This record gives sequence, C-alpha cells and structure tokens, in this order.
Amino acid sequence: MFSVDPVNHALDEQISHIIDQKTKPLGALGQLETLAAQIARVQAVGKDSLARLTITKPAMLVFAADHGIAEYGVSIAPSAVTTQMVYNFVAGGAAINVFSRQVGFNLEVIDCGILEPLADPTGVTEQRLGAGTAPIHLAPAMSLTQVEQGFNYATELVQRHHQSGCNLIALGEMGIGNTSSAAAIMSALLDIEVSQCVGRGTGIDDKTLQLKTKLLNEALTLHRQQLTSPMQVLAHVGGFEIVQMTGAILAAAERKMLVVVDGFIATSAALVAVELYPEVRDYLIFAHQSNESGHKLMLAHLQATPLLHLDLRLGEGTGGALALPLIQAATNFYNDMASFGDAGVSNIT
Amino acid sequence: MFSVDPVNHALDEQISHIIDQKTKPLGALGQLETLAAQIARVQAVGKDSLARLTITKPAMLVFAADHGIAEYGVSIAPSAVTTQMVYNFVAGGAAINVFSRQVGFNLEVIDCGILEPLADPTGVTEQRLGAGTAPIHLAPAMSLTQVEQGFNYATELVQRHHQSGCNLIALGEMGIGNTSSAAAIMSALLDIEVSQCVGRGTGIDDKTLQLKTKLLNEALTLHRQQLTSPMQVLAHVGGFEIVQMTGAILAAAERKMLVVVDGFIATSAALVAVELYPEVRDYLIFAHQSNESGHKLMLAHLQATPLLHLDLRLGEGTGGALALPLIQAATNFYNDMASFGDAGVSNIT
Repeated sequence: MFSVDPVNHALDEQISHIIDQKTKPLGALGQLETLAAQIARVQAVGKDSLARLTITKPAMLVFAADHGIAEYGVSIAPSAVTTQMVYNFVAGGAAINVFSRQVGFNLEVIDCGILEPLADPTGVTEQRLGAGTAPIHLAPAMSLTQVEQGFNYATELVQRHHQSGCNLIALGEMGIGNTSSAAAIMSALLDIEVSQCVGRGTGIDDKTLQLKTKLLNEALTLHRQQLTSPMQVLAHVGGFEIVQMTGAILAAAERKMLVVVDGFIATSAALVAVELYPEVRDYLIFAHQSNESGHKLMLAHLQATPLLHLDLRLGEGTGGALALPLIQAATNFYNDMASFGDAGVSNIT
Repeated sequence: MFSVDPVNHALDEQISHIIDQKTKPLGALGQLETLAAQIARVQAVGKDSLARLTITKPAMLVFAADHGIAEYGVSIAPSAVTTQMVYNFVAGGAAINVFSRQVGFNLEVIDCGILEPLADPTGVTEQRLGAGTAPIHLAPAMSLTQVEQGFNYATELVQRHHQSGCNLIALGEMGIGNTSSAAAIMSALLDIEVSQCVGRGTGIDDKTLQLKTKLLNEALTLHRQQLTSPMQVLAHVGGFEIVQMTGAILAAAERKMLVVVDGFIATSAALVAVELYPEVRDYLIFAHQSNESGHKLMLAHLQATPLLHLDLRLGEGTGGALALPLIQAATNFYNDMASFGDAGVSNIT
C-alpha cells in the first residue's frame, strides 16, 4: 500500500564530519548530535542538500476517537470527555493548544470516530470510521475495511500538509480508553504479557487496573487465532485514532517527512508502522519517555531514546509539542554553528 | 552582603488549585507543574499577581575566565582556547549563540579574567579580576578581596538587566580548566572525596583524569586549614567566572529574579550561593542533568531535578538555553489553559 524508501546512508561520513568540525568538543551536544545526523539522513538527497537542514510548517495532528471498552470501567473518565476535550481543542484551551501556539505547530484536530458526530464540527476534520470501536473483549474493534479506510483518510491528511510545504508531523491523540487498545496492540505484537503492558493511564486505582488487565486478557484470548498480522491486530484490538496515526506515520515516511512520536498511544501506532515497514523507523523522532513500564518496553524494542523525560502523562501530543524546540536546536546547530576553521578556534577534539 | 527573601508560601494552596483546575488529569503535566508552582511562588506578591506568570527579557550571561591549573595538563585544550571561544561568542558562531538566538535569550559575554585582556574587547563586558587564577595546587586561586570584587561586578551586571525589565537570568561559562575548580569546590563544601567529584570534563583520558585527581587532592590538602567558609573556598580553589556566577545568583535572588543553572560549573556556583544563603534555592531552576557522577551528587544535595537529560557536556549555558522553552511552557499552561469550568469538561481528576 505504501512505498517507504530507506533513509540515505551514503553521506553518513560527510554528515559526521560536518558535526565534528563544529566549535565544540567531540560529541558534546549529545543527543542533539544523533538527532541532527538522523534529520540529515532523511533530508539528504544530494551532497548539496547537506548544507542546511530545515523544519518547515510543522503540523500537530491530534486524532480523536472513542473505545467501546471504555464503557466497562477501565478508565477514570467516561467517553463523553473525549467529545468535551475535542470542543476544548477547538476553543484553544487545552494543553496541546497552548504548547502548539508557543512553539509554532499548526494544530489540526481529526475526529476519527468519537461516540457521536459533533453537533458543531467547525474546526474539526471529520474522518470518522464509526461511532467508537466495539468493546474489544467482546468483538473485533473494527473490520479490515475500516482499517484500510483509516489509512486512506490519514494519507489524504498527510498529503495535504505535505503539499502545503510541511516536512514534519507530530502525532497527538485524545480518546478515553485508548491506553487499553495500545496495551493490547503492544501485547499482541511483542508477545509480552498484558500485565507488563498495562499501566495506570491517566491515574486509575488498583481495582481498575486489575479489571483492565482482566478485560485485555479476555480480548487477546478471544482474538488469538486472528492476530496473524499487524493489520489484523489493528482490526481486532486497535482504535480508530491509532489506525489513522499508523497510516499518518506511513504516509509521512513515504513522503520523506519526519514524524514526532509522543507517548504510549502514539508509540503503539509507531510499533505497528515499523512492523509493517521497518524502513519507517529512521523517520521517527521520539519525544517523551513516560514512567509507564510498558512504554519503556516498547521504546526499547524500537531502540528509541526519547528527547524528554518530564513525567508527563497527558497525551494530546504534548510531549511532541514540547520537543519541537529541541528538534529545531538540532537543525540550528548543524546549520549555523561555526566550524573550527571558520572561527579560528584550535580543534579541541 | 545580600538580602534574599524566602519565596512566598502563603499562596501555595491557591497556586495548587489553579493548576489542578486546568483541563487535564491531576498532575499530568509532571515536572512542568512543579516548575509553574515554583515560578508562582517567586512571582506571587499579592493575590492578584497569581493571575499571570511572566518571563521577560531573559538574559544568558556567559562568564569567561582562565585557570592556572590548566597549564598543568588537566584539560584536553590549552587556555588559549578560552580566548578563542570568547571571540567565537562575539562573532555569533558558538552553540550558545545559536541556541540563544533560537529561544530568545539576550546573550552577554563577560570577561571575568581570561589570560590576557582582549586585543579587541568589542561586544564583551570587561569585569576582570586578574589574568587567570593562580594554580590552586600551589597557591590560593585569588584573594578574598578579589572574591568580593567579583560579587560587586556581578551585582552591577544583574542590576543592569533587572532595571531593563529582565526577570530571569541563565548562567553560562567558558574557561579551560574550570571543571577542576568546580570539583574542588564541591569536594570542600560537601566533604566528598575528590575521586567522586572529578569527571572527564569535555573528554579527558584515564591518565589525565588521574593527574587531575592528584592535583586536586594536593590543592585541598594545601588549603585545608583555610577552607573554613564558602567565601574562603571560593578564594582558595574557585575561579573568576565561578565567583561572578555565585554573585550573579545572589544578586538575582535578591531581586526576586529566576536563575537557570546549567551543568557542573554553574551548579558548583549554585552550591556556594545556597551555602551562603539557603533561601536562594527556591529561585533556582536546574536545566540539565549531565552524566557526570559528580554533577548528580551535587544535584542530589540541592534536591534538584533538572528539566533535561540530553547527554550534553559542552557548557557555555547551552542546557539553560535549551530549557527556556520548557520554562515558558510552564508559565503558558498556567496562564492560558482553560479550567474544567471554563471549558465545560467533566472534572476527570
């Protein structure tokens, strides 16, 4: 469905040389150096293209959807909160609005399938795959056709941003119950016990955590025979927003755009995308490491070292928004720092 | 010499209430919530002042100086590099220039006592305490009079920024050999063995590390009887830039300004400042946790949890510059996020 090129490793030596000649001790900018090299490999088409790295018209795409399992007591909040928060996004009052305005992200909110269509959808992009997924411990979340439709929607969305000059997207989400879906995806794809995949989400208590674990074990037992591919995993235990995030990652990598991945939900989408197309991994920038043990396991599997560790557990793409200045810092030092030769500084490497 | 008020704890409950009513799960913005509350306590004068937090005209102050011990082989670079890098700062080509421009820091470079006065001091503030310190393993670094002069210089500098409307300063530094001075200060003040305080700085090898440890042990043995107060520690094993950073911290806290502390050298200055005036601690924001074990021990002593962990080991204030967007994010969510009541969102806390 997608055609993702591997990043360009032919210029690795030149990229390292550019970074190492900057007026600083060798490696002294730590993770920002690794990041600059990654961006250079994504953006390097010919030798001349090494001259400057750019982040243009960055877009924060917040995917909202509801989850049937939420009605069975796995979350601290009812599904109605998904819709309330979508209106909060439109009104500009949520954390992701504040942070996107600050750092210069164009924010777009996508209804991927919240419980009911919005009475007033002004300011929201409607790409609905349904009215919430089916409860995954009782039935498949959705059909394969819905997964494919979700990929098509996401591709159109990313293509629109790409055509307007955007070369970096960040993934945000809102969906009461979506940590359950993400944990089930993780358990199915990595073959890790549910108990190691589930966490407290936004703050559930012991009893709710036990129930969540029980229902997810039921879901994985119910669908076990059908979980034969990443697409089937999405169909059986996924969520409408996770499907579209996965599609957005693939569509972006296909267009050689960078993708900022933040938090447990977005990382589960990244996991599916990388299972489908391993080449995608090199286009992904991981924004925030949460304290959830499940998130750490997924990141380790993806060999990802996130940029931030701020104990965030909000979602919405907030970690991705907060990471953008660091991504820009990586391109800026690569573009604008003087070299030892330029500056007349003795090479201290 | 200084008069530092404790921060205002009278409004702690109202501050918590403001943060907890924002449309997010309780505590979900993690370290940014702690930071917003800290800034509110610094800036809260009356109840009305809780309405908005502000960061105005932030200044990045980069203090440069040379160290006599550098001539004895403890660093990867000769002292000449300090001067070369000062010219690089003036020309705008160093990492701290790039990052300060990006995030909106006003950058000021201060010559606190590099080896020789600059042939062309244009663009540099001259607050020289001498032509490099004495080698601390052979003699006191400087006199108490020089320490006091350094505090006076730093106070004038901070006062000038304060009068122009600045309410946050960040501390940067450049000085070949200054990790030796910082390690000696740490060892003297915290009574921790030199071997636990020294690190590889910008990247020294095993042999150099052994020599550095040996010379610092000689320095601390030589001055042991005189290290009776933080001022005496500065005079005997300090550096001209560390003295002025300490003075800048104290002068800023006296004026209820926030101070961003970055890296091993700046943290050693913070340690001295807090030993002198414990009230100062609440004005300090720690920017970056390095991988140096000595830095971790100092931060633990100061009960500090830095905002970033990016494996930086460059100095110059780079971690502080990269942290500014996070500090602004803390004020922005506090100021601009909708409350549950405002947004019509069910309280999910």
